[in-house]
Amino acid sequence: MKKVAIIMGSDSDWPVVQAAAKQLKEWEIPFEAHIMSAHRTPDAAADFSQNARGNGFGVIIAAAGMAAHLAGVLAGNTTLPVIGIPLKGGAGDGLDALLATVQMPSGVPVATVALNGAKNAAVLAAQILSLSEPALADKLLLAKEEMKTQITKKDAMLQKELAQ
Amino acid sequence: MKKVAIIMGSDSDWPVVQAAAKQLKEWEIPFEAHIMSAHRTPDAAADFSQNARGNGFGVIIAAAGMAAHLAGVLAGNTTLPVIGIPLKGGAGDGLDALLATVQMPSGVPVATVALNGAKNAAVLAAQILSLSEPALADKLLLAKEEMKTQITKKDAMLQKELAQ
Amino acid sequence: MKKVAIIMGSDSDWPVVQAAAKQLKEWEIPFEAHIMSAHRTPDAAADFSQNARGNGFGVIIAAAGMAAHLAGVLAGNTTLPVIGIPLKGGAGDGLDALLATVQMPSGVPVATVALNGAKNAAVLAAQILSLSEPALADKLLLAKEEMKTQITKKDAMLQKELAQ
Amino acid sequence: MKKVAIIMGSDSDWPVVQAAAKQLKEWEIPFEAHIMSAHRTPDAAADFSQNARGNGFGVIIAAAGMAAHLAGVLAGNTTLPVIGIPLKGGAGDGLDALLATVQMPSGVPVATVALNGAKNAAVLAAQILSLSEPALADKLLLAKEEMKTQITKKDAMLQKELAQ
Amino acid sequence: MKKVAIIMGSDSDWPVVQAAAKQLKEWEIPFEAHIMSAHRTPDAAADFSQNARGNGFGVIIAAAGMAAHLAGVLAGNTTLPVIGIPLKGGAGDGLDALLATVQMPSGVPVATVALNGAKNAAVLAAQILSLSEPALADKLLLAKEEMKTQITKKDAMLQKELAQ
Amino acid sequence: MKKVAIIMGSDSDWPVVQAAAKQLKEWEIPFEAHIMSAHRTPDAAADFSQNARGNGFGVIIAAAGMAAHLAGVLAGNTTLPVIGIPLKGGAGDGLDALLATVQMPSGVPVATVALNGAKNAAVLAAQILSLSEPALADKLLLAKEEMKTQITKKDAMLQKELAQ
Amino acid sequence: MKKVAIIMGSDSDWPVVQAAAKQLKEWEIPFEAHIMSAHRTPDAAADFSQNARGNGFGVIIAAAGMAAHLAGVLAGNTTLPVIGIPLKGGAGDGLDALLATVQMPSGVPVATVALNGAKNAAVLAAQILSLSEPALADKLLLAKEEMKTQITKKDAMLQKELAQ
Amino acid sequence: MKKVAIIMGSDSDWPVVQAAAKQLKEWEIPFEAHIMSAHRTPDAAADFSQNARGNGFGVIIAAAGMAAHLAGVLAGNTTLPVIGIPLKGGAGDGLDALLATVQMPSGVPVATVALNGAKNAAVLAAQILSLSEPALADKLLLAKEEMKTQITKKDAMLQKELAQ
Repeated sequence: MKKVAIIMGSDSDWPVVQAAAKQLKEWEIPFEAHIMSAHRTPDAAADFSQNARGNGFGVIIAAAGMAAHLAGVLAGNTTLPVIGIPLKGGAGDGLDALLATVQMPSGVPVATVALNGAKNAAVLAAQILSLSEPALADKLLLAKEEMKTQITKKDAMLQKELAQ
Repeated sequence: MKKVAIIMGSDSDWPVVQAAAKQLKEWEIPFEAHIMSAHRTPDAAADFSQNARGNGFGVIIAAAGMAAHLAGVLAGNTTLPVIGIPLKGGAGDGLDALLATVQMPSGVPVATVALNGAKNAAVLAAQILSLSEPALADKLLLAKEEMKTQITKKDAMLQKELAQ
Repeated sequence: MKKVAIIMGSDSDWPVVQAAAKQLKEWEIPFEAHIMSAHRTPDAAADFSQNARGNGFGVIIAAAGMAAHLAGVLAGNTTLPVIGIPLKGGAGDGLDALLATVQMPSGVPVATVALNGAKNAAVLAAQILSLSEPALADKLLLAKEEMKTQITKKDAMLQKELAQ
Repeated sequence: MKKVAIIMGSDSDWPVVQAAAKQLKEWEIPFEAHIMSAHRTPDAAADFSQNARGNGFGVIIAAAGMAAHLAGVLAGNTTLPVIGIPLKGGAGDGLDALLATVQMPSGVPVATVALNGAKNAAVLAAQILSLSEPALADKLLLAKEEMKTQITKKDAMLQKELAQ
Repeated sequence: MKKVAIIMGSDSDWPVVQAAAKQLKEWEIPFEAHIMSAHRTPDAAADFSQNARGNGFGVIIAAAGMAAHLAGVLAGNTTLPVIGIPLKGGAGDGLDALLATVQMPSGVPVATVALNGAKNAAVLAAQILSLSEPALADKLLLAKEEMKTQITKKDAMLQKELAQ
Repeated sequence: MKKVAIIMGSDSDWPVVQAAAKQLKEWEIPFEAHIMSAHRTPDAAADFSQNARGNGFGVIIAAAGMAAHLAGVLAGNTTLPVIGIPLKGGAGDGLDALLATVQMPSGVPVATVALNGAKNAAVLAAQILSLSEPALADKLLLAKEEMKTQITKKDAMLQKELAQ
Repeated sequence: MKKVAIIMGSDSDWPVVQAAAKQLKEWEIPFEAHIMSAHRTPDAAADFSQNARGNGFGVIIAAAGMAAHLAGVLAGNTTLPVIGIPLKGGAGDGLDALLATVQMPSGVPVATVALNGAKNAAVLAAQILSLSEPALADKLLLAKEEMKTQITKKDAMLQKELAQ
Repeated sequence: MKKVAIIMGSDSDWPVVQAAAKQLKEWEIPFEAHIMSAHRTPDAAADFSQNARGNGFGVIIAAAGMAAHLAGVLAGNTTLPVIGIPLKGGAGDGLDALLATVQMPSGVPVATVALNGAKNAAVLAAQILSLSEPALADKLLLAKEEMKTQITKKDAMLQKELAQ
């Protein structure tokens, strides 16, 4: 299976971003996680992205806050799908990161998920890889069923609470 | 190659959304385009999405404005990657559509592109399909090179203009 | 009397949403509360809404946060009045939920109340039911008078405080 | 059948608001339309609202722009359901009217629809009245079916266009 | 000297609003403070405002949060200058209160101060009254000088800190 | 009667701001209008403001767009009430001017009116001056009555239109 | 004198950006203008920036719209001061470009000017260069005086208009 | 070397602003820090700015919150580059300070950095001074390299954590 790259701009992003790693691990999707910055290590980021397809990656997930350029810069250097996670934090309220991630110019898309949406970035990566991995498609279907079951259980618990 | 579905909530969205169709056609990616609404034809939308993988689709692109629920509703009914195009229009300024598309709950991502970003939705779909279509990956690389060439040409023209 | 349905997307919404249940109980308005999700249990939500009128419901209250699609999806499947409560929470600041709830397309309204306005959703439901329930109309009038009395009392207390 | 009141703050709102009147007329719902202002004719507005239920009204629709106080002021003077239409216009962009309409305090809800959502205000009023008017419920169901048909037709036209 | 009225929509606003009272007291400006609501005691609010000039008031200060209609409603019922204090609080972030206070229609202004700007509302009221109260004008000038002195002192302290 | 000063940052603001002059003229309130800039003629602006009370002014109206500092800078140099008109225009949408005008620090209020609210700035100035000018108070009352009459007339016209 | 670089992401930005070139020319400051893109020609942009100081540049001005990464990416590759001009345009309203330009992480500032503030970017560049160019400092002072004169003239014209 | 001035509107800003002083000290750039206010000590602020170039300053850094006029007022009185730090705080969320700082009119730029971006203001000041101070340029390059090293180290630590 192709690998997923998880790139974040700072180690302080890890507490939020690791939810993506955890989900990929659970579904046994191979991944690497790296700290690289569009502004502090621009060469490393560009190199990584230019070589990502050749190095066996299929999807790049990039997480950044404030003027979140990381996903866009990686997308400028690859033809792989790049998923952007806008992060809350710093003195901004997240709207800065969201707009800086999603409003990409024509020809260079970033697949943006919700603010701090690290788990959803992993789910989206899995959906993308599932197109050529039937076993992964099955896992996704199972997870969808499990979500339904959870909600049904919680509704049942609510009914008990209301009946008291 | 797997097909791309382009779903829009209203025929009035077509002038913006057809940029996606045009790009897919240019790269010879098979696609279908349909008008379906999360609010006006909810059953048709749910049915389409639930059967999309089985019917040979690999990616779903959904475009909607205002309280843009279409992409989210389709994503709730499939494990395929769903790309959302938030549209400007109506009395809203597009922020409504952007937030209603991107801020999806955990487990059900929508890969959101820029406001009115129909062409980028097609590029992202192509990037996704390219993982198992080497010929498509080549086309994407070529397009990336072509973008560079265009900018280089335009810079050359600007230099001429400035030299006068 | 027709019943009120209170639908929420997650059990974590209950601490806010139960204010609606409490108010309905106080006025002896029959209600059911359920956890259903536009994205995680789309079929259950659609079924519930399609059958709500036939099952004796007169109003549906739906509470959701972030890309709050629940009220809209329910409204797409019924001709009953649907009241939407946009919730704060997640990494969003509530503006996402407000716009995703209120900016509905032509033909499918959602009666939106304030952010976290669970009590007001119940009051609005009662106002709607009061059109054919004179006893409920009396209760609403009484509650309005009680609000006046409370404010008058609080003003009197302020005068005492200022006089010291 | 109970009447619907359509109240607007200025005659300049009529071009937008009359969509509500048109829809009510189409469904043969009795209505009155009036120009009254929370700031310019506060007594008239208060009187109208205090007597609305007694005068045979079942729902009040109020449309206003900028610091849109009209719906809230009417809601403060009645126990009838009040539907608010926030209007775009003036130097504001509509967010002012939306927030000033929807963010009502506890105990005094305004059922807010989309910016300039005059038609949806009428649909919501009809949904409310339909609880005790089976014939109106039938009309709403028919309209919902008609919306589906329209979308299906438009999709068919799109298929023809794409097939060329 | 004419009196200042401080009106607030709820006793929960008092902790913020009392800064206005404190400032007026310090300058020996006569005032009354009352709890009245545009939505819960609309008649009392209208009566108070209609009679304010006759009852010896020269300025009305009104504080409210969320869909802050109080200042506007009072302004609709008087020709006295009305100062609005938009309050943060509830689930809104204050932008709702600010826009609902300041965006008044032509003919009915509200003199809006900053979010939670209770002290400034009192200063503005004093500036207004100072036009016919030379002694108050002197106090305002003194306060302005005192602000300068405070800043000069604080700068001196900073210089000491930096010199260490 | 004390004079009103109308200060604007640029002659391009005059088409909006002259509505204030027109209203003052109608009520025979003496006024001066000047172009001065907080950033381009800071000394002139400071001088004008420091001497305004001594020169017979009672109120200063200041209009500016974008980073609208003019009203604040004038308020920093006088103890007269300063009314700020935030202007739309330039590449900003007016929110910049509104926030830059209203969010003044403690001790230095600006009485902010609506975006482009030039007429309301004049009305507010008149309300302020009316405290010591009974004849002006009468004119304001008359204008309030005239607004009521206008609305009543327009409602009557609407009734005719609806009756056809 | 050191040169100024004007970099823009697209030739469509030139109509706005050329105001910077015009101002630099007027003050005889040497400059180059280039079209380069953070996303379409990332290598060219990085190379230019890394070599800018060595190539005789003293300031880099970068203009971009939407998810405006250009200034940030250039700033990541140089220790020269980088001035960012956020552009309005595309489907965004400029807030996207402003936040994406200004909210840079610690260590990599972008000196951001107003939306579409091309002239001001040139003025800022001139102010920076003026520190070691006394002749340029004189020109800036002259321009400041000229601004004052213009405003004084316009005020005189207004006085004439008002006197008629 | 020319000095840097750090001006803030209130001593309560110092905890954020001192990061600028600390960075300047680290690079041995001479600086002064002062508390001055555009609204409370307007004369002092104008005097300081008018004489700053003559007094040996090369750059002015100004920090202010809410209706942040300080940087703009200083910029109106000098031809030196002025760097603005918009501060979060008070009842505003920082957007007020950002817009009030950056949206300056033509001819009077403020080089705006991120919300609370005190360190970056110092870095930008150093970049400006580095044009005529080769030793400072070297320090900036070193700091840039140090940032890279830090990120590389942190990535190495993450790899260890992931390998466990």
